[in-house]
Amino acid sequence: ASGGKGIGGRTRSIRERVPPLLTDLYQFTMAYAYWRAGRHEEHAVFELFFRDNPFGGGFSLFAGVHDCLLFLRNFRFADEDVEFLRSVMPPDTDPAFFQFLRCLDCSGVTLHSVPEGTVVFARVPLMEVAGPLPVVQLLETSLLCLVNYASLVCTNAARFRLAAGPKRKLLEMGLRRAQGPDGGLTASRYTHIGGFDLTSNVQAGFLFGIPVAGTMAHSYVTSFTSLEEVWPQTLSAVNGDHNLVDIISLTKGWLSRVCELLGAEPGKIHEGELAAFLSYAIAYPQNFLPVIDSYSVGCSGLLNFCAVALVLCELGYRPVGVRLDSGDLCKQSLDVRRVFRLCSEHFSIPAFDSLIIVGTNNISEESLAELNSKISVVGVGTHLVTCTKQPSLGCVYKLVEVRGRPRMKVSEDPEKSTVPGRKAVYRLIDAEGHPFLDVVCLAVESPPEAGLPLSCYPLGCNHTALSVTPARVTCLRQEPLCSAAETRAKVQSSLQTLHPRHKRLQKPDSYTVALSQKLHNMVKEIQKGSSNNTNFLLAN
Amino acid sequence: ASGGKGIGGRTRSIRERVPPLLTDLYQFTMAYAYWRAGRHEEHAVFELFFRDNPFGGGFSLFAGVHDCLLFLRNFRFADEDVEFLRSVMPPDTDPAFFQFLRCLDCSGVTLHSVPEGTVVFARVPLMEVAGPLPVVQLLETSLLCLVNYASLVCTNAARFRLAAGPKRKLLEMGLRRAQGPDGGLTASRYTHIGGFDLTSNVQAGFLFGIPVAGTMAHSYVTSFTSLEEVWPQTLSAVNGDHNLVDIISLTKGWLSRVCELLGAEPGKIHEGELAAFLSYAIAYPQNFLPVIDSYSVGCSGLLNFCAVALVLCELGYRPVGVRLDSGDLCKQSLDVRRVFRLCSEHFSIPAFDSLIIVGTNNISEESLAELNSKISVVGVGTHLVTCTKQPSLGCVYKLVEVRGRPRMKVSEDPEKSTVPGRKAVYRLIDAEGHPFLDVVCLAVESPPEAGLPLSCYPLGCNHTALSVTPARVTCLRQEPLCSAAETRAKVQSSLQTLHPRHKRLQKPDSYTVALSQKLHNMVKEIQKGSSNNTNFLLAN
Repeated sequence: ASGGKGIGGRTRSIRERVPPLLTDLYQFTMAYAYWRAGRHEEHAVFELFFRDNPFGGGFSLFAGVHDCLLFLRNFRFADEDVEFLRSVMPPDTDPAFFQFLRCLDCSGVTLHSVPEGTVVFARVPLMEVAGPLPVVQLLETSLLCLVNYASLVCTNAARFRLAAGPKRKLLEMGLRRAQGPDGGLTASRYTHIGGFDLTSNVQAGFLFGIPVAGTMAHSYVTSFTSLEEVWPQTLSAVNGDHNLVDIISLTKGWLSRVCELLGAEPGKIHEGELAAFLSYAIAYPQNFLPVIDSYSVGCSGLLNFCAVALVLCELGYRPVGVRLDSGDLCKQSLDVRRVFRLCSEHFSIPAFDSLIIVGTNNISEESLAELNSKISVVGVGTHLVTCTKQPSLGCVYKLVEVRGRPRMKVSEDPEKSTVPGRKAVYRLIDAEGHPFLDVVCLAVESPPEAGLPLSCYPLGCNHTALSVTPARVTCLRQEPLCSAAETRAKVQSSLQTLHPRHKRLQKPDSYTVALSQKLHNMVKEIQKGSSNNTNFLLAN
Repeated sequence: ASGGKGIGGRTRSIRERVPPLLTDLYQFTMAYAYWRAGRHEEHAVFELFFRDNPFGGGFSLFAGVHDCLLFLRNFRFADEDVEFLRSVMPPDTDPAFFQFLRCLDCSGVTLHSVPEGTVVFARVPLMEVAGPLPVVQLLETSLLCLVNYASLVCTNAARFRLAAGPKRKLLEMGLRRAQGPDGGLTASRYTHIGGFDLTSNVQAGFLFGIPVAGTMAHSYVTSFTSLEEVWPQTLSAVNGDHNLVDIISLTKGWLSRVCELLGAEPGKIHEGELAAFLSYAIAYPQNFLPVIDSYSVGCSGLLNFCAVALVLCELGYRPVGVRLDSGDLCKQSLDVRRVFRLCSEHFSIPAFDSLIIVGTNNISEESLAELNSKISVVGVGTHLVTCTKQPSLGCVYKLVEVRGRPRMKVSEDPEKSTVPGRKAVYRLIDAEGHPFLDVVCLAVESPPEAGLPLSCYPLGCNHTALSVTPARVTCLRQEPLCSAAETRAKVQSSLQTLHPRHKRLQKPDSYTVALSQKLHNMVKEIQKGSSNNTNFLLAN
């Protein structure tokens, strides 16, 4: 499939979104050097992981896997790609290399990955890419580009979901603040998987089937100045009879009663705002949810809303609620709720008790956690999509095996050393059902067994062995592909099983990732070999 | 033109990148309410601006204008777009509205904009979009999405350029940390306009003609273990004769001499690293620039580089330099330079004096400013493309006129009030050639004149009039479209004329933006009118 109808909806062709030239030039210069040295058939294995959980958190979600698969399936150079490369590579590059590129695809590449949406931890190998050395090298930047932001923003969404609690509806509305069009689409897509319910981005609804939401902006309100602009000035009741009601005089009547009930000054009410609300209610009598802070919530917006909503109720419609977009949302929502209750009681309109309040004022993880339960829908833009607290995830792609032999970067900085060889990762679950340790083993090792003690070496404190007995063991790379909706559900259920101490948003306990005894031994051997360099200068 | 070959190179069709559904749902619900009220032919004017310069700076660059133009030119709904909208709008939406959408385009819309790459300031109207009310409303999110990140990352690039000084080459290499594929491309495109010389992103080279650069990653170095992997093991000299030289023994000889010269321990040198360098040098004898910190710069990488580079020099080639990617770049670059000089003198190889040092270790604006002049090429990734310091620009799109009548949002927060009416912006230049004040006038006013005193009202201190006499006056919206290369040059020349006190990276003096006398008077009148609401409740 060329990606026209991808997993999760009508995605644009991956070949267009991620052409094979969308990578760093050094991938090509290295590929040429490998080819030139006759190493283009050598089998190599790269591993993808990150070194720290983002946002100072205790966990991450891994995302972007489906796009990586589509990318690999469609990886092929067009003639114009190759001609462009010829123009930028040094003039002494052997022309036969470009012929090699022309025939290249990923048929010899295998990808093993932690599934889309898995809860993961720092230093766990998330993806293994194996195949001919120059080919798997070429894939580096594109794969990193596809998983880094997807995982980051998905994790950010999951944190907002944890801060919001399970009941509140969360709306993503960050398109205008994203890194251009595709950044916005990627944000909508992966924040939905991470736990958001709705998006304002219509194209994301179209492509990925995410429910869309939205009603009006302040400009709609300020575009009206007087009730004369309301047209038509009539509305019929919902109950079948087609008698048209003069909605202007009906509204004025309700507004007077509301002002009287609340002791409000009619002189401070904006007529243009009332006209805007009324006009919107006539267009959408069943979906009335205006933004009420264009002028003043207490002196104008809330009163205008109540008047129009009472008209709708009188005609048998059900208004939906209000949106607050500035100021102290907590304080305002209490006032709004109080007024709704007063109207409900005074005018005997029980529908006023189930009106909702939507809050959308520059919401951050912290301000979301502080919102009260009066606000049942929260829209989040900038802080969600730009990941203000940490706007990038540092996934890296490291060589771990060449020609069947483990490769390791032995750095002077132990944090930057890599763990060699092909691996399998097992998650150990305790008796309460909480995962408590991920153990990274050699791929050829037999998996840990439930109920049997296992000796392993936690990363970060390399020399201390730890013995653990899992109640259950799962393999992190053994799941079939699933739909976006299934992935989204899986995210929430896996977060559910994660112990609260690991999912605390601030200062969580760090989750243990350990090497198996055999892998630990291999690391030690290679380190020893590396420090005992045979002196090749004297060897010839 | 459908955008296939846009300004600045082979851009992907704007219709694909920014389909008309790539906007917030509320634009459509508002458009419907306007249409329903018979307001779809009403002429409206929106204005785009931001309230604060990003990064705590004193200026910004405005970018994304060309994409906005292409977007408007190609704005049309496909049948499937309209069908999707029908499925998400409330079921009581009048079907004739969808017919209206099907015929809609931007032929009735005019766009006036500050040109691409202009130095701009907070609160100056940057773009004016005029046309039928529902159409110009629909454009909001897409236009904001196209200019926000483009302007932000272009401004960030200009700040990195200021920190780097005019001579150093700057390389953008942020693709893997951007918000997905298109985020990376947008970053490459606008950082080049903002002052970067090179990009690592090959696709950006292909699409936008930006020069590309890159040589090797650490994985290339760690993929080699011994000199036996080097192939071919011969190289011929550059001077025409085709005698193949045994490059292994030649290299060992030079390495021994280098170790002796520097008093280095041959036992600490990594053979795999030497093999990698040699292999690369055989592939690219004229482009040798390896990364030398895979193991240890001082004990291995630098020595291996010198040996291979001396071989190349002996054979008549010119090695290019080294890349440093970790640790203290300043300190290391001094050591590297010292060793180059020693080799140059001791072996009488003057080419060693012109070797370059490339630095690429998590460079920020601050760390760039602290680099010494030994490092002549700097690669920047994460901090450049994610704009870590402030990952979004808050451009807004506000209604300023409907049916020829000025509209103003009179907010309780004076910062959030808007300035009504259609405007022209003039930049006043002082006798030294520095711009010193932008004055926002009504479009119908005659422009300020050079040499004549002008009374105006600086924004932020609304009641104090200021009298200024410009030596020269330019209109901010009177330039023809130009190519990316011309824009890039213009950015640097306009930054040149900006007074140093405004372009200081930390705590700059703020540039004055003022309203003309007439515009100021209009604002005051509307504010007065707004507080004297006629009580429409009593009017009927």
